[in-house]
Amino acid sequence: MSATSLFKNIKENFMLKRVVITGGVHGNELTGAFLVKKWQKEPLETKNIKIEYLLGNPKAFKECRRYIDYDLNRSFSKNALSKDSSNYEFERAKVLKERLKSCDFLIDIHTTTANMGMTIVLSKDDPLSNLIAKKLSLEFDDVKILRWFSNSEGDFINSTVPHSITLEAGAICQGVLEPKIFFRCEEIVKKAVEILDSDMEINKFATDKSVEVYDIVKTVDFPREENEPKAMIHPNLLGKDYSQLKNGDPIFITLEGETIVYNGEPLYAVFINEAAYYEKKIAFCLCKKSNI
Amino acid sequence: MSATSLFKNIKENFMLKRVVITGGVHGNELTGAFLVKKWQKEPLETKNIKIEYLLGNPKAFKECRRYIDYDLNRSFSKNALSKDSSNYEFERAKVLKERLKSCDFLIDIHTTTANMGMTIVLSKDDPLSNLIAKKLSLEFDDVKILRWFSNSEGDFINSTVPHSITLEAGAICQGVLEPKIFFRCEEIVKKAVEILDSDMEINKFATDKSVEVYDIVKTVDFPREENEPKAMIHPNLLGKDYSQLKNGDPIFITLEGETIVYNGEPLYAVFINEAAYYEKKIAFCLCKKSNI
Repeated sequence: MSATSLFKNIKENFMLKRVVITGGVHGNELTGAFLVKKWQKEPLETKNIKIEYLLGNPKAFKECRRYIDYDLNRSFSKNALSKDSSNYEFERAKVLKERLKSCDFLIDIHTTTANMGMTIVLSKDDPLSNLIAKKLSLEFDDVKILRWFSNSEGDFINSTVPHSITLEAGAICQGVLEPKIFFRCEEIVKKAVEILDSDMEINKFATDKSVEVYDIVKTVDFPREENEPKAMIHPNLLGKDYSQLKNGDPIFITLEGETIVYNGEPLYAVFINEAAYYEKKIAFCLCKKSNI
Repeated sequence: MSATSLFKNIKENFMLKRVVITGGVHGNELTGAFLVKKWQKEPLETKNIKIEYLLGNPKAFKECRRYIDYDLNRSFSKNALSKDSSNYEFERAKVLKERLKSCDFLIDIHTTTANMGMTIVLSKDDPLSNLIAKKLSLEFDDVKILRWFSNSEGDFINSTVPHSITLEAGAICQGVLEPKIFFRCEEIVKKAVEILDSDMEINKFATDKSVEVYDIVKTVDFPREENEPKAMIHPNLLGKDYSQLKNGDPIFITLEGETIVYNGEPLYAVFINEAAYYEKKIAFCLCKKSNI
């Protein structure tokens, strides 16, 4: 996957009819869930497109947990979708896949305990999704673009639709709402909808301005003993998402206070200390940055 | 309960033999759980007292949830302790009560998503507990004392022992470790142990220096609609634990952006936006402050 293919010139006009906005795919990420609930009561105004608002994981939301049996946003692989299961999320994924059948564009809202600011995550290389991400990044100074194309744990909800963006906002704890993040997410999603609702002559959006794009190339786990972390993110790295790690930079501090340093090529760290990734054996992800 | 009774002169010498330190009474508050695990491997050195380290809620810790069936730290009421139950925490509470039978002093470590700094919570008016709290507050500039004597939801673990302090540290998200908070909690607990391990001639600790004490007098819920919050903590109040609320100060902002102000006598807010209290219908608690 070359970075240069991201913003290739888009010839065709996209015929968008149906946009779906999901929140609460992780039940304890309240921002998206409450935005969806707000819009279910008072839908956004559009001229050309129809928007549906979906609470991703109602059972997990009710219990304020990320998931009940398995991460719903890793439950869209063929394997999970193809057989009956006692796993709540595997069944919910089948329902969502059906609901998203005629969805042209999905906007999925997430939050993270990592200090990611406002990040648009792209999970496949698709011209329209790329373009919306680029537009948002040019519109809002604080919007970064992150590409995460493969996940060994299972496919994202985005895999069920032709075009999509994921909004990942942080830092915010699981289980809480904060006005600054809530209203900023609302603003960004509204802008995305405004673009999608325009006449979709995509080429007129074309711009020569470049944007930065981060590509996740690997993940780094905590040092562990008997499966449990025996170190924490080092204070120098904590909260420094999108900063560059160089050889010798402190990355962990053990529970006894010993510093562990980075050993590798210069890369950019994201999802630093995301609570939900402890069990996924991810202390942070490492990215390459391109300016394209 | 008068404030003046807090630090009354202590005549007797306390004969402390057995101290218990608990962490992970809430399974997703990792700081206490990992401190306990650290000390289980390398116990603190003491001369006079014996310390036992207990992981409060192993099942919830394993699943990184606050609790499985019910808040363990509200499961020590007579009712919960007196009858067989299918509720995991009610059964775990019975086990813990038995384990704490000969415990002279309990140190229970918690964290909060509220910006409470390092708070010693006292849950009953007991001279020795009061004294340890006072000593810690005088020793560490950032240690505040909060008294929370009644809880309609059910009794705390502290109710099973004669003397205790609860360390409540924040702000930190559920499900993560952060070195600053981890090591600061360690330092404060170590100091508490050092005091308890001394010859316990309590009177020699007596001091005329005064300390501030906050008493929780009421809780304030979010404005709700169909049981769900329809407002968030106002940005002016968020993170401002221990600040004084005065008539007319903004406290909430609705999902639509409308400000809701405080209407009442001047009081101090704590536990502002604690994730676990959304379901308890507590947006924040209000305190009176005394300087005694």
